[in-house]
Amino acid sequence: MAGNSIGNLFKITTFGESHREAIGGIIDGCPAGLKLDLAFIQEELAKRKPGQSKIVTQRKEDDLIEILSGVFEGVTTGTSIGFVIKNTNQKSQDYSHIKDKYRPSHADYTYQSKYGTRDYRGGGRSSARETACRVVGGAIAKQVLLHYGIYVNAYVAQVGDIKVTKHYSALDLSTTYTNSVRCPDKTVADLMYNRIDEIRKEGDTIGGVVSCIITGAPTGLGEPVFDRLEADLAKAMLSINASKGFEIGSGFDGVAQKGSEHNDEFFCHPEHVEGPTKRIYTKTNNSGGVQGGISNGEDIYFNVAFKPVATIMQKQQTVNEQLQEVDITGRGRHDPCVLPRATVIVESMAALVMVDHLLKNRTTQL
Amino acid sequence: MAGNSIGNLFKITTFGESHREAIGGIIDGCPAGLKLDLAFIQEELAKRKPGQSKIVTQRKEDDLIEILSGVFEGVTTGTSIGFVIKNTNQKSQDYSHIKDKYRPSHADYTYQSKYGTRDYRGGGRSSARETACRVVGGAIAKQVLLHYGIYVNAYVAQVGDIKVTKHYSALDLSTTYTNSVRCPDKTVADLMYNRIDEIRKEGDTIGGVVSCIITGAPTGLGEPVFDRLEADLAKAMLSINASKGFEIGSGFDGVAQKGSEHNDEFFCHPEHVEGPTKRIYTKTNNSGGVQGGISNGEDIYFNVAFKPVATIMQKQQTVNEQLQEVDITGRGRHDPCVLPRATVIVESMAALVMVDHLLKNRTTQL
Amino acid sequence: MAGNSIGNLFKITTFGESHREAIGGIIDGCPAGLKLDLAFIQEELAKRKPGQSKIVTQRKEDDLIEILSGVFEGVTTGTSIGFVIKNTNQKSQDYSHIKDKYRPSHADYTYQSKYGTRDYRGGGRSSARETACRVVGGAIAKQVLLHYGIYVNAYVAQVGDIKVTKHYSALDLSTTYTNSVRCPDKTVADLMYNRIDEIRKEGDTIGGVVSCIITGAPTGLGEPVFDRLEADLAKAMLSINASKGFEIGSGFDGVAQKGSEHNDEFFCHPEHVEGPTKRIYTKTNNSGGVQGGISNGEDIYFNVAFKPVATIMQKQQTVNEQLQEVDITGRGRHDPCVLPRATVIVESMAALVMVDHLLKNRTTQL
Amino acid sequence: MAGNSIGNLFKITTFGESHREAIGGIIDGCPAGLKLDLAFIQEELAKRKPGQSKIVTQRKEDDLIEILSGVFEGVTTGTSIGFVIKNTNQKSQDYSHIKDKYRPSHADYTYQSKYGTRDYRGGGRSSARETACRVVGGAIAKQVLLHYGIYVNAYVAQVGDIKVTKHYSALDLSTTYTNSVRCPDKTVADLMYNRIDEIRKEGDTIGGVVSCIITGAPTGLGEPVFDRLEADLAKAMLSINASKGFEIGSGFDGVAQKGSEHNDEFFCHPEHVEGPTKRIYTKTNNSGGVQGGISNGEDIYFNVAFKPVATIMQKQQTVNEQLQEVDITGRGRHDPCVLPRATVIVESMAALVMVDHLLKNRTTQL
Repeated sequence: MAGNSIGNLFKITTFGESHREAIGGIIDGCPAGLKLDLAFIQEELAKRKPGQSKIVTQRKEDDLIEILSGVFEGVTTGTSIGFVIKNTNQKSQDYSHIKDKYRPSHADYTYQSKYGTRDYRGGGRSSARETACRVVGGAIAKQVLLHYGIYVNAYVAQVGDIKVTKHYSALDLSTTYTNSVRCPDKTVADLMYNRIDEIRKEGDTIGGVVSCIITGAPTGLGEPVFDRLEADLAKAMLSINASKGFEIGSGFDGVAQKGSEHNDEFFCHPEHVEGPTKRIYTKTNNSGGVQGGISNGEDIYFNVAFKPVATIMQKQQTVNEQLQEVDITGRGRHDPCVLPRATVIVESMAALVMVDHLLKNRTTQL
Repeated sequence: MAGNSIGNLFKITTFGESHREAIGGIIDGCPAGLKLDLAFIQEELAKRKPGQSKIVTQRKEDDLIEILSGVFEGVTTGTSIGFVIKNTNQKSQDYSHIKDKYRPSHADYTYQSKYGTRDYRGGGRSSARETACRVVGGAIAKQVLLHYGIYVNAYVAQVGDIKVTKHYSALDLSTTYTNSVRCPDKTVADLMYNRIDEIRKEGDTIGGVVSCIITGAPTGLGEPVFDRLEADLAKAMLSINASKGFEIGSGFDGVAQKGSEHNDEFFCHPEHVEGPTKRIYTKTNNSGGVQGGISNGEDIYFNVAFKPVATIMQKQQTVNEQLQEVDITGRGRHDPCVLPRATVIVESMAALVMVDHLLKNRTTQL
Repeated sequence: MAGNSIGNLFKITTFGESHREAIGGIIDGCPAGLKLDLAFIQEELAKRKPGQSKIVTQRKEDDLIEILSGVFEGVTTGTSIGFVIKNTNQKSQDYSHIKDKYRPSHADYTYQSKYGTRDYRGGGRSSARETACRVVGGAIAKQVLLHYGIYVNAYVAQVGDIKVTKHYSALDLSTTYTNSVRCPDKTVADLMYNRIDEIRKEGDTIGGVVSCIITGAPTGLGEPVFDRLEADLAKAMLSINASKGFEIGSGFDGVAQKGSEHNDEFFCHPEHVEGPTKRIYTKTNNSGGVQGGISNGEDIYFNVAFKPVATIMQKQQTVNEQLQEVDITGRGRHDPCVLPRATVIVESMAALVMVDHLLKNRTTQL
Repeated sequence: MAGNSIGNLFKITTFGESHREAIGGIIDGCPAGLKLDLAFIQEELAKRKPGQSKIVTQRKEDDLIEILSGVFEGVTTGTSIGFVIKNTNQKSQDYSHIKDKYRPSHADYTYQSKYGTRDYRGGGRSSARETACRVVGGAIAKQVLLHYGIYVNAYVAQVGDIKVTKHYSALDLSTTYTNSVRCPDKTVADLMYNRIDEIRKEGDTIGGVVSCIITGAPTGLGEPVFDRLEADLAKAMLSINASKGFEIGSGFDGVAQKGSEHNDEFFCHPEHVEGPTKRIYTKTNNSGGVQGGISNGEDIYFNVAFKPVATIMQKQQTVNEQLQEVDITGRGRHDPCVLPRATVIVESMAALVMVDHLLKNRTTQL
């Protein structure tokens, strides 16, 4: 209710500001019996970590995960999993210049207005640092999904106006994390890299789009009416800092199509007309793997739009707490483009939603 | 959890299939003391009602609302408001031809797969008829918002590739419902009307985009991290039948911008630097009225993408319950374009989200 | 949140006042595939119905259930089940004398104070009439439980100071509903009947205790820490009108015992040490079937205390809305003792809790 | 849903086992602007801490609270409050003898049965150590209540068959924590102390009753139908380890009364018939401060029954994981009676419920 939890049966609740000792969270509802791979969680955190290349913020955070409960002899016990990540790089002095100024397109003013107070250091609770906790939750959710043969893969599909034009099926998604942009089309990745670096030198920032593909999901995930799978995915994605849009399947482009073009006709696969793998298939997948809010067994794919990072190294006009008009210039270590670090966050949020619906779907039939 | 409720403090739960006696719902958490305007609810339902013009389905439903509780002497009592809407036009025979066939891009297969059974008549629970209950909830929510000077206005911004190009501030939104397309730009409305009518004659369907503007919202609505205002709006919009995308503020177009272009600089208005109307303003509004997940007092505006209606009057290939490949051709009375009837549904879902957050925000400070 | 829903995965939301057209509710999360026995629901409602004997209120309500959705060809579809029960016996004139007076130990004053308004007719939302909806939910829940061999049986264990002294295992619980008191000990039932009738003639009322036994529950129901099975049962029972206490297993009497007396030692049953019926047993059952908040396979049993009905046919002192001290005397048709009609309500609430936990427990292991 | 959270608007989620590095939790929804008194939280924890006297367990835990977020410059910011308490006294070797044995009336068997695994050390998640996190949440909730002049006071009212016979109004509740039994009737406290010490020497344990009184609560707290104030209190109390019963107001004793005796007649206080303190009063308070599920401004009082502690220093029969019947004898450091340490836990749970309802009640009227 107060915004720090997501999920029903598989639920994560988080806490933490960027300039305190630690951030952390609790995962409640993780099924018992999962052999938890801690190294994998750490690897996932590394994908989000600052300081990995020239085109992301140069802050250094170790982001070491400490699991405090819910795991015994390496296996989940079904009880709540508490974890903390220490903040090792809190340079509070970096923020003295914005103590009483509202940074444009940041949450300073809205937090102050809502709560009557705020931790101004590094954005406090509104800092993107909280997404590290999402990655921990997502890394555990991914391990549950792995058990059921479900995979979540995101990549940077657009930076500024540079786009990946190939269909995702023509890309080798296993190469996404081999470059610092997190784009599996090497040629486009290079263009993106240069664009971001250029923007960085200007002291400016740029936006982009992350695409995400979920493969191996069974039919039946998603609830009718309000808790549709795509509705929960949309909420999860729009809950990420700087995201401004979500589209699934044909999305905004599909609106110009006719029904006769857009409809996904069904067909049978002779090897899957009976037995445990029985299902039907669609010739096209404009639906993006969901029909009536429920997964149909095809790939689930969607895009998430991210605006340019709000902190820029240029002078801007703003207002201070005394309601005086003042200038402000960004300082410190910031990302010129959030996209490279956002892919793993998109994957994490998607994985959290998928596990929640996977568990819900167990309660559907007598 | 099972999908038939939305909202926390102001919550609607619905029930009903298109081919039973009635549909209905319960609104829980409506504040006491609201003088409920029943005629307004009925007018809102009329905006969604089928059979209003040549370009929508010719089904006839009276859609008469019966409020069964929660109102005493015309005023809400704070207890749950139960309501029903009788189904007066159930032509079950229309659906015998699809009894055991999975209609492409409909929910037939996913419901059957999830539940092991389904009411095939008119799509059962997946029928867009359930949206009438959302309109009832929305019409009550709008009356709460009206009390606080908050207004929600949606309009059809695109049909196929025909778009409204004017900024919403250049449109007279009070004229939206004066034409059957629900587009406040009369010239564009005419083009849209002709396009839909053309598509209808082809036995085909077409998609489009609804834009929605919320004015008068105070600062402070929305919760940090997961329950951001835009996240809850995104969920609400993606929960509507046939919707495939959501974008707020600059949305997908904003990703190509630089931070220096996109950032909304703050300024003061000399008449609002102290007293009860004290607030600050932004020069631009690429944020779409939310920053850090919380409303900043500017207009909240967003777009929703709708795919073309799945039922077409043309022959398509599909599969039946026996997993045989068969042909199917749409029959009955269907919409060639969902957009004209979708505007009030978008407004309703937006209003429900806004009231929920309005109430939540009362609990924020000591 | 606003109080008209209970349950998470199997959830009921209700509406309705005693002096409007109808009451009703929505059950969300009922598993698909249940062949629903409508006659059984009607029979359950009959157990709660007024006017069945001299010792309960002489109001006449038909309490005919109408299921409006969620069932197709007699089988649940997994979607929300809406239902209404018409109010056929609204004598609003009976209540004019209490229009502006706060009846002692009723909810008149607290509702007025909380909401600033209230439907004074028959207690409005606070009327025990709402419990009919609980019985509908319970009757559906019982059918789910029946599928898994779980049975819920309640009976009147005490009226005033007349108590059933036999252990429940010495009673034939199938005879509970054969007498109007709903007590399976015929001798005690007669004493109770006479006591209630005596009280009725005095224009007074009397309280009592309902005992409830759940048999056939598997191990594993209940969640650790806050959502213990007994915690959810306690909440469900204290949510019933006029209930003032709950105790499980040894309850309040057990506090005087030593651990060495109270502990339930385990043993094995040679026929259940392996295979699907493998489990262990306890020699005694002071725990009441739950340990650490989770069912252990033994009978679950608990007691619920009900205070005497607040409406009495005697003169009492009170205060009116103008805050003047005034006299009040009960009129109309009221129960001298709520116990005979409460047994089926206790069973219903217990059944709702059990199904909710049965479904939750499906999500516990990988 | 998975049991580790309680509350809606003011919600606590906890984690932790007794034999890991730390336990902790997250409080979400604490209003911003509360000057948080950390020393008070530590004092509250001290009331629950083991090792304080001869009649409680001799384990030594420092129970130092570390607040990791949600507080800035000593004041709550409205964002989630994360906290941890290190476990400094984990003697895992103490539990090797019970590694594969199910301790009678403990949660060993039910956890193993539910989850297929368990952390057997110190009871794992079922350990009463988790109640330290409840005390932290309660200590913060009490500070919110203090701001509104609401006080929660519990005391030991019964140990074995030794009872406090005085009405709570005849006791000085400020003296409760001046003795190790936590009973404000000094004479009875001495009797209780001796009884517990006697039991301790026998290697046995004993149960008892905690009474709790909430003063200063305004009218209007509690929601109708299912979320009655007493229902939420009952759930909160039955969620505490070893609790077996709850009664409010007249409770189980009240069932033998007549309505004419039990009803709480209203009267006016001449100083409170208008203005901000306007309210009406009851001559008696058999209702226990709630009518129709909503507080009426009178004292709220209730009792909670606790069974004798399950761990005894005597030989008992049980079963091991291999389903063989074996003997077991308690070892280590355990409480002969849970009551002295339970009072602050009862207070904490009551405070959590009260704040949650206090916030909910802000959303009731337009």
